Amino acid sequence: MTKTTEAEGVVSALRALLPLGAVSTEPTVLQAKSHDRSHHSSATPIAVVTCRSTEDVSAAVAVCALHRVPMVPRGAGTGLEGGANAVAGSVVLDLSPMNRIIAIHDGDFDAVVQAGVMKSELNTALEPHGLFFAAGPGVDASIGGMISTRASGMNAVRYGTIRENVLGLTVVLADGSVIRTGSRTRKSAAGYDLTHLMIGAEGTLGIVTEAIVRVVGVPEASVTLICSFETMSQATGVVYQALKREVPISRVELADTAQIVAINRYCGTTFSELPTLFFEVQGRPAGIAEDGATLRVLAEEAGAIGVRTTTGKAEADEIWRARVDALPAAGALIAGASTWSTDVCVPISRLAECIEATIVDVEASGLLAPIVGHVGDGNFHLAIVLPEGDGDVWAKAVALNDRLIVRALSMDGTSTGEHGIGVGKVHSLELEHGDSLPVMRAIKAALDPHALLSPGSVFPQTGRTTS
Amino acid sequence: MTKTTEAEGVVSALRALLPLGAVSTEPTVLQAKSHDRSHHSSATPIAVVTCRSTEDVSAAVAVCALHRVPMVPRGAGTGLEGGANAVAGSVVLDLSPMNRIIAIHDGDFDAVVQAGVMKSELNTALEPHGLFFAAGPGVDASIGGMISTRASGMNAVRYGTIRENVLGLTVVLADGSVIRTGSRTRKSAAGYDLTHLMIGAEGTLGIVTEAIVRVVGVPEASVTLICSFETMSQATGVVYQALKREVPISRVELADTAQIVAINRYCGTTFSELPTLFFEVQGRPAGIAEDGATLRVLAEEAGAIGVRTTTGKAEADEIWRARVDALPAAGALIAGASTWSTDVCVPISRLAECIEATIVDVEASGLLAPIVGHVGDGNFHLAIVLPEGDGDVWAKAVALNDRLIVRALSMDGTSTGEHGIGVGKVHSLELEHGDSLPVMRAIKAALDPHALLSPGSVFPQTGRTTS
Repeated sequence: MTKTTEAEGVVSALRALLPLGAVSTEPTVLQAKSHDRSHHSSATPIAVVTCRSTEDVSAAVAVCALHRVPMVPRGAGTGLEGGANAVAGSVVLDLSPMNRIIAIHDGDFDAVVQAGVMKSELNTALEPHGLFFAAGPGVDASIGGMISTRASGMNAVRYGTIRENVLGLTVVLADGSVIRTGSRTRKSAAGYDLTHLMIGAEGTLGIVTEAIVRVVGVPEASVTLICSFETMSQATGVVYQALKREVPISRVELADTAQIVAINRYCGTTFSELPTLFFEVQGRPAGIAEDGATLRVLAEEAGAIGVRTTTGKAEADEIWRARVDALPAAGALIAGASTWSTDVCVPISRLAECIEATIVDVEASGLLAPIVGHVGDGNFHLAIVLPEGDGDVWAKAVALNDRLIVRALSMDGTSTGEHGIGVGKVHSLELEHGDSLPVMRAIKAALDPHALLSPGSVFPQTGRTTS
Repeated sequence: MTKTTEAEGVVSALRALLPLGAVSTEPTVLQAKSHDRSHHSSATPIAVVTCRSTEDVSAAVAVCALHRVPMVPRGAGTGLEGGANAVAGSVVLDLSPMNRIIAIHDGDFDAVVQAGVMKSELNTALEPHGLFFAAGPGVDASIGGMISTRASGMNAVRYGTIRENVLGLTVVLADGSVIRTGSRTRKSAAGYDLTHLMIGAEGTLGIVTEAIVRVVGVPEASVTLICSFETMSQATGVVYQALKREVPISRVELADTAQIVAINRYCGTTFSELPTLFFEVQGRPAGIAEDGATLRVLAEEAGAIGVRTTTGKAEADEIWRARVDALPAAGALIAGASTWSTDVCVPISRLAECIEATIVDVEASGLLAPIVGHVGDGNFHLAIVLPEGDGDVWAKAVALNDRLIVRALSMDGTSTGEHGIGVGKVHSLELEHGDSLPVMRAIKAALDPHALLSPGSVFPQTGRTTS
């Protein structure tokens, strides 16, 4: 049987089981749903199945499993490491329409959602309850996608990553069967932690269709501080002192000089062009007044050049908007350029050293790569600027990123703090976890014996390609 | 070959590889190391191997694997569900001498420890650094044991369970090979989360020999509140309101009337004999003054009968000592009695209802079973009093506990909040996670194909018995 006949057979079988219109082979749809936001290559899938329920996903997986056809699940396609990139001969399962908020349990601080719900949609629904979902990146993303990549963001220093904010999952396994992991309780010691096994498995062990997520009360008051330093280590030193005192920091972000220059140009701000810390402390009025004063003292003792404090919402929003816009600000440095956001994480005590060594490397490479960091976690990102039409820049950028990964690993770090392995970092996973890779592979083989789920991700491809 | 000859063969092989004196077949040692603190039966092992390093554990496991001999690892033997109980024909691996604190990384808020380090030992070592390890029970336990049972305690409401306080592990697998999971970074999205797979696996997937644990700064100031209520739901309602406002509660414990009676008798305290909440808020002076005042108002609005607040260390210590002594206080109600501490967890909004229904059941059963609860997590414990020589009480207690588990599961709860499955709750695991048990078994089969690690725990025994 030819590949085309095989593909037609699978498509027919899918159409027989899925609702009318759910299965598409339209070239524009196949193209649109074949990749995420990374620069990694993707293949054209044989079909895209639009899923609206766990049952749709289960049916689609059962058909593909029967035909031994690889599957690539996707949410909003906002991933940065190619995890949602289609492989040759695959069926893409599009969960983005699964955007129903099933329940909000105000009294238990949890919400039950379908995997396609966007973080912004969830927070909009939670707002009247005085609650919010704290985990995940500043850029909007689907709950399922964030779970699959073990995502994180600016609030991790206080509220944790996705890892600390998911209580249970509904997962469709490689044969189409459905399981529920975890529960709505705050904690459980019952059996293996399959919830956390699935978090960060990037769709390779099962497809997350629903999640029970932890939500928290909206703090009453906020104070924002912005301050600049001569050196990175002065900045990270202040953060250490604040964390030691258990100051309830909800966000603490670092931007290097290049990033501040980009932000000032893009946002029209006039921040000092130096390594800069953005702090936010949230809590109750007397408490945060005390904490804000403490931070100011710590910053000044560490040599801060200018400490600006505000409790005003509009002013704080403007400061944080500038930080959130860091990536587009970097891209705007060169007209028509795109950007590549890298991601490593080191122990906090090595962060300044790692960033400083990276800045030296960036300068030597001739690339433009402003840096932002989640200081409270030791995690930082380069926004590597890729000018259009520059044939050399991609190879230089890949080499820079490879050196960055090696540098982070040499400092007891990890090759990815929050973006995941995808296809882009399979080689890094071997470097970082070579001794435990056999265990990961054994688990993969146990749960997906025919290697049909996201076969291009996490592990080096076993014969399947994205081109 | 007879069982005795087989056993002698294994013992000889162990003695050939392990240091002199590490392998014991002395009856008193075999007896002492054959069980934990639970009431579940245990068998006599064929040998006890005293391990002082990962290499010792690896060597012992390799020998046992070769001879297909089951192994039961143990730390301090403080478990409550029989997880460290020897099975017939097994070798017990005693990791309690592995009590070295390998490193304290002040600047990164982590410590690296051997699995046999006791929580109290770790906190003693951390004290000069102004740090502490917040997770785990009030009763002292080993780090490895707490990791294996996914333990928790009074600080979970603020600092999380063991799950949120372990960054990485060194694990000896079923064939004796050694892997490292996780890293010293605050977060990582690199590959499968084997750290969390091992946390709570109760020694059935691998033996934890070292851990990288998260530590936190010691808060500057504390305030303790104790207040009584007519009803459980008044009490849990106050906790909900406090959590909604993100009051930084570090401990919040509930004791029922029977428990308060026991505490007053045992500790000489004069608390009102009513459902009682013990609160602790920690932070910085102005902040906790504000939070203490808020809690008082919330309690009074909810109908609290007497609210006592203190920032004095001695007075606070006395109040918390009374709570920590709840279990022995219950046991002391009847001279010569022992106690059985049960453990379920429900969503916070169902806690009052679950406890009230349980109290009715306890009264109907004729048993004495004071109750304490970690209100912030929905987790509560009965201290079932077992008078010596009462032939009927054990069966009644088992039946009471079975009804408690079913009640909790019917309220979206879990059969164990923090004690684990061990041998005692294997039937509950089937009730609670029947749909995902095949996945757990598949992972077990992949990592321990001959079912040699802790074969009596978590899954129904496959032919091996504890008697």
